Amino acid sequence: MPKKENKISVPGFTANGISVGIKSPSQKDLGLIHCNIPARVAAVFTKNSFKAAPLLINAERIKRGMAQSIITNSGCANAATGKQGYKDALIISGEIAKELQIKEELVLLSSTGVIGKRLPVKKITSGIGKLVKGLNEFGIEDAQSAMMTTDKFPKISIKKGIVGARDITICGIAKGAGMIEPNMATMLTYVMTDALIDSKALNTVFRQAIDATFNTISVDGCMSTNDMAIIMANGMAKNNPLERAQARLQLFREMLCDVLMELCQAVVKDGEGATKFITILVEGAKSRSEARRAAYAVANSNLVKTAFYGCDPNWGRIIAALGSSGITLERERVTLYLGNVLVFSQDSPVNYNSIKLKDIFQKNKIDVRIGLGAGDKSYCVYTSDLSYEYVKINAEYAT
Amino acid sequence: MPKKENKISVPGFTANGISVGIKSPSQKDLGLIHCNIPARVAAVFTKNSFKAAPLLINAERIKRGMAQSIITNSGCANAATGKQGYKDALIISGEIAKELQIKEELVLLSSTGVIGKRLPVKKITSGIGKLVKGLNEFGIEDAQSAMMTTDKFPKISIKKGIVGARDITICGIAKGAGMIEPNMATMLTYVMTDALIDSKALNTVFRQAIDATFNTISVDGCMSTNDMAIIMANGMAKNNPLERAQARLQLFREMLCDVLMELCQAVVKDGEGATKFITILVEGAKSRSEARRAAYAVANSNLVKTAFYGCDPNWGRIIAALGSSGITLERERVTLYLGNVLVFSQDSPVNYNSIKLKDIFQKNKIDVRIGLGAGDKSYCVYTSDLSYEYVKINAEYAT
Repeated sequence: MPKKENKISVPGFTANGISVGIKSPSQKDLGLIHCNIPARVAAVFTKNSFKAAPLLINAERIKRGMAQSIITNSGCANAATGKQGYKDALIISGEIAKELQIKEELVLLSSTGVIGKRLPVKKITSGIGKLVKGLNEFGIEDAQSAMMTTDKFPKISIKKGIVGARDITICGIAKGAGMIEPNMATMLTYVMTDALIDSKALNTVFRQAIDATFNTISVDGCMSTNDMAIIMANGMAKNNPLERAQARLQLFREMLCDVLMELCQAVVKDGEGATKFITILVEGAKSRSEARRAAYAVANSNLVKTAFYGCDPNWGRIIAALGSSGITLERERVTLYLGNVLVFSQDSPVNYNSIKLKDIFQKNKIDVRIGLGAGDKSYCVYTSDLSYEYVKINAEYAT
Repeated sequence: MPKKENKISVPGFTANGISVGIKSPSQKDLGLIHCNIPARVAAVFTKNSFKAAPLLINAERIKRGMAQSIITNSGCANAATGKQGYKDALIISGEIAKELQIKEELVLLSSTGVIGKRLPVKKITSGIGKLVKGLNEFGIEDAQSAMMTTDKFPKISIKKGIVGARDITICGIAKGAGMIEPNMATMLTYVMTDALIDSKALNTVFRQAIDATFNTISVDGCMSTNDMAIIMANGMAKNNPLERAQARLQLFREMLCDVLMELCQAVVKDGEGATKFITILVEGAKSRSEARRAAYAVANSNLVKTAFYGCDPNWGRIIAALGSSGITLERERVTLYLGNVLVFSQDSPVNYNSIKLKDIFQKNKIDVRIGLGAGDKSYCVYTSDLSYEYVKINAEYAT
């Protein structure tokens, strides 16, 4: 995460975030990211069947490959709101296009918050004038604040590097906290870059990068109706253009993965009620999908997560969760390491140093490494623990 | 549940439960159920790949179709304990056979508690003499107490009825509480009956009854290594023998289902930290398996469960969980009732009475009814909420 004093900006982008009273008066709840010129765009959306209204609209608009603005409100998800929700979103989109004097089809929309409530359209439209007026090149942090819900800290990552013979910048912002088991993107992630890159390359590289980062995390195993990740590339760096199958695209992909990995790990660290950051690596699987299934079975087990929260080295729950994953296991070949302590091997507990193991469970960063001994494929999942605080936050969310 | 003053017994069965110091000195932790003559037996076991040692032994013994005794310890699951765990279980089984003067292959074994710890064999064997000596026809309640772990109340159900021209008795006992999403049986369920029934009929009817009862519940979505349900039928009622495809078998099945339903609902009510009993009925599905998938997606959502705990009518989370289930949904056809209040229909929120809805969420028994409008198949799941207490119990379990 960048230091406060270094003001964050990306050439060609402006942003802003204000309060229009959807949440409490002191909290920012409406944010805008705007590119001075139309930018190439790629996006991925939740696989949830009840995709929220803004996502349905975006999915259509994104097909043209260009976008210029993303408006986001927090406090209301505009999900499970049917035709009315769709109409409401279009009103916002029309107003923002008019105010920005751009084509409406270049506006992307996003909402996050309670599901099943109607969008407070008037509150939002009445704030659009102020929102647009305040757009400025250092407004990215304000835009990020405006999309936070139960997030405890902002999630911004920025990288600069030379790609295609020019300095380029990639900056990503994200919101996370709860309902986090993305099936392509967690909640909201926006990436801005001045790189010059063609549409196909942007699309491919973005999907690959999301798959390698946001698709490997889980806070509570719950898939949202509003998950969405968007990248806008305005080409203002005037680098040698990035196209598919080019060596220099690899550099861009690496930078992008760095930005997204920083963001998705921040989302896990700020998981609702999270006190620990847990890495679950499954190795030696027959296939990547089996490794993934095993890793998520462990990551999403409430019993594993509460044991981590309680600093309780109850590793038997990890074995039980692994055994419930549904993949074929050769018990004799399975190994389990917690940190650098081997606790289970040859279908039996190992005579480990229990003081050392307790120490590992006291830490706020714990590495779980499972070997299946069945092949050479692996998968790594990042997750958090399950605490009183998670229950508290979510027992009292809507009321 | 039967009243205290009515002493529970099943003709031909004796039982006992004592403390041998595996748990605290005051808690019973070793239980025995014994049939005076070898009984026909059927059983189902967890689908977890890391089945505990006693289950591996039982699975072999059950093939012969006869059993006479079940010994159960709590406080240690003898799971993830490998060859040593297998040997340890065989020592117990040998000792109990010797003491009871029966064939060792007629002894079934069971353990419940912490996974990955060696069975305290000496404590158990040193108590076997006392355990056997104390066997008595009214000992079923003591045997049940001895298998409790985090259970708050005992789970016993008994039915009497006329089947095949004779009075028969079916009595079931269960332990539950945590790691409850059975994939055939939750934790431990033993059923004793004096009905005369042949092996094939017993096997068939028991699997059907478990599928209709224990396989429809979930507390925390975690599948145990030790789940097991066993039925022993000693034939002492001398009824007209029950065989497959007989009308009177239907009577027996109904009685058995009543017993098991009472037990499995008690397991949900006593789910770790549970404050509410939630019924999730999915109707109008294309297939039973799709209805099941949808029902479990809702039942196992931590966000849904915490909303119930918080008495928070945040029904949008139910829609989000349904949408994440992976089944194909026609959004326009989906309906959601909470109690008798329709909250969602035609892809939109209904203008419901929110005071009435709040009242429903205050109750400790809540009915969720989801219509998919895609067919005529349904599935019903019973589950509990997710509370601070669940986190507390499981954060501090092993230490």
